[in-house]
Amino acid sequence: MKAGEFTLIKQYFDRPVPEGFLGVGDDAAILSVPLGQSLVVCKDMLVQGRHFVPDVSAHSLGHKSLAVNLSDLAAMGAKPLGFLLGLGVPKAEHAWLSEYALGLHALADQTGCPLIGGDTVCSQDIVISITALGTLPQGHPGLRRNAAQAGDDIWISGVLGAADVALQHQLGQITLSEDVFLRLRQYLDYPTPRLALGQGLLGLAHAAIDISDGLLQDLSHVLNASGCGAELVLADVPIHPDLACLSFEKAQIAALQGGDVYELCFTAPAGLRDQIDALGLALSVQLTRIGQIQAQPGLFGLHGDGQLTPLAPEGFDHFAHEHKDNV
Amino acid sequence: MKAGEFTLIKQYFDRPVPEGFLGVGDDAAILSVPLGQSLVVCKDMLVQGRHFVPDVSAHSLGHKSLAVNLSDLAAMGAKPLGFLLGLGVPKAEHAWLSEYALGLHALADQTGCPLIGGDTVCSQDIVISITALGTLPQGHPGLRRNAAQAGDDIWISGVLGAADVALQHQLGQITLSEDVFLRLRQYLDYPTPRLALGQGLLGLAHAAIDISDGLLQDLSHVLNASGCGAELVLADVPIHPDLACLSFEKAQIAALQGGDVYELCFTAPAGLRDQIDALGLALSVQLTRIGQIQAQPGLFGLHGDGQLTPLAPEGFDHFAHEHKDNV
Repeated sequence: MKAGEFTLIKQYFDRPVPEGFLGVGDDAAILSVPLGQSLVVCKDMLVQGRHFVPDVSAHSLGHKSLAVNLSDLAAMGAKPLGFLLGLGVPKAEHAWLSEYALGLHALADQTGCPLIGGDTVCSQDIVISITALGTLPQGHPGLRRNAAQAGDDIWISGVLGAADVALQHQLGQITLSEDVFLRLRQYLDYPTPRLALGQGLLGLAHAAIDISDGLLQDLSHVLNASGCGAELVLADVPIHPDLACLSFEKAQIAALQGGDVYELCFTAPAGLRDQIDALGLALSVQLTRIGQIQAQPGLFGLHGDGQLTPLAPEGFDHFAHEHKDNV
Repeated sequence: MKAGEFTLIKQYFDRPVPEGFLGVGDDAAILSVPLGQSLVVCKDMLVQGRHFVPDVSAHSLGHKSLAVNLSDLAAMGAKPLGFLLGLGVPKAEHAWLSEYALGLHALADQTGCPLIGGDTVCSQDIVISITALGTLPQGHPGLRRNAAQAGDDIWISGVLGAADVALQHQLGQITLSEDVFLRLRQYLDYPTPRLALGQGLLGLAHAAIDISDGLLQDLSHVLNASGCGAELVLADVPIHPDLACLSFEKAQIAALQGGDVYELCFTAPAGLRDQIDALGLALSVQLTRIGQIQAQPGLFGLHGDGQLTPLAPEGFDHFAHEHKDNV
């Protein structure tokens, strides 16, 4: 590939940046962190064949590659400030790049998170490395993984299982009807980062995490970091209604273990239930209490018959994205 | 690869972060930008087979992958604050990871730029995407590419040509004696980002750029962005003394066009020569005046015989890294 082609690529991404930013085109971007705010930074890498199939829609990949990073900001309670794009592609293909940029910029515009810089390179497979910047009120600890407290309610946003079941259909492991698949694949291809919810939870929630590796695995990260345990009321875990076409057991496994979910799991004092319900209503986001943090370590499921059994967070090797782990 | 292996990888990178930082291990890092400072952010991607050979020393790759980003901060006049690491490797290999981490952390410690977060993934080839954060005094425009002015002196730090000639030897295009190669490869494998120089030039220099794509190409970026031209006094361009083993023409081409150089090329008013000379002395960095910015566009070389000929900045397709271009 000629260098000129890579110079061309930046045309897909070069857009005006807000007042006070120095954006795309210099050695680095310059921006102001508003007075009284701390900076929050996260970075997720997506690799072809590992986190997405080679023939995935470029538009949805543009959306999703930014969404997974915004979801990390949301899980800290941060407000987006801007992002940098590292993009490796085997060749400069107009159709692919313009679709990718469309999907990317649509979500950037919608969330007020402009592209402020980055790097494009030639690579054998498609590699996307986005760094998202956000802000938190200075002195606020954010919604950290290690802040859950015994007695906290455990909450989850949205409904679960959709992305995992759509992926199972794509992999030929199950067969869904066309209309069900089309509805469920939206969760896989166009996940919604819960930014307003994360910011609304500052001052209400103790700990939060986005459950991109699945509810059980990511909740376990919170429990380990906080040095406590949890009891989940299994019947209360909200399952996407379209999963009614599967056996209840399959649907529940998808909801508990299925990855690629960008909902927030958070813990909060029981005394704040009304305020959290009100927040969910105000944001039109379904918020469900699904259990309680316990002082004793261990993750347990409470069954309908009153039995309490241990829930294993490990062993979900069939999710490609679990090979990914925050440094 | 099992997910557990990737959980292990973070042990190579998980180190205490400074007071006030939330580092490795949560959804995102939190940090304070000191009062009165703007944030500067840059991101470079390095891909195996494109920016480095597969059998490159992991230690030098650790150093270099951070150095190229710090060099971008230096070229803005910014002071490092911290960095995020996106690392894709085919497998979790202890020897490679520990060497890589050693090289990375050695430069991080030396430059006061701690690792504050990131992501590790499994990828077919090694891919490294580092995002470096730095600060500039608030309101200071930094050393931008578009700020060169007619009449400015053009300066270069250090001596040129070493990295390119070492690469030519590695590629078998030329043969150097063992001791010359060992000296020159230091420039290729362990480049020094000119951080102190960049910060010292704030208030003195107008425009600056690091010449990672070669002096002529990167100076052309400054000229294009600033809407002006330049005359270089070819005999004044400082060449690494070890290049005396080559013909003068070959040495000069390496100095003018050779890439992978992390020296700063900057422009400054002629009235500040004494101050810039003093800065170079104070920092023990060789600073050489090599020409002048002209109002008329175009890049010209002044030869010893008084002839002025156009210098073409394009067409250096033999440098692997030129396939890289800032978004």
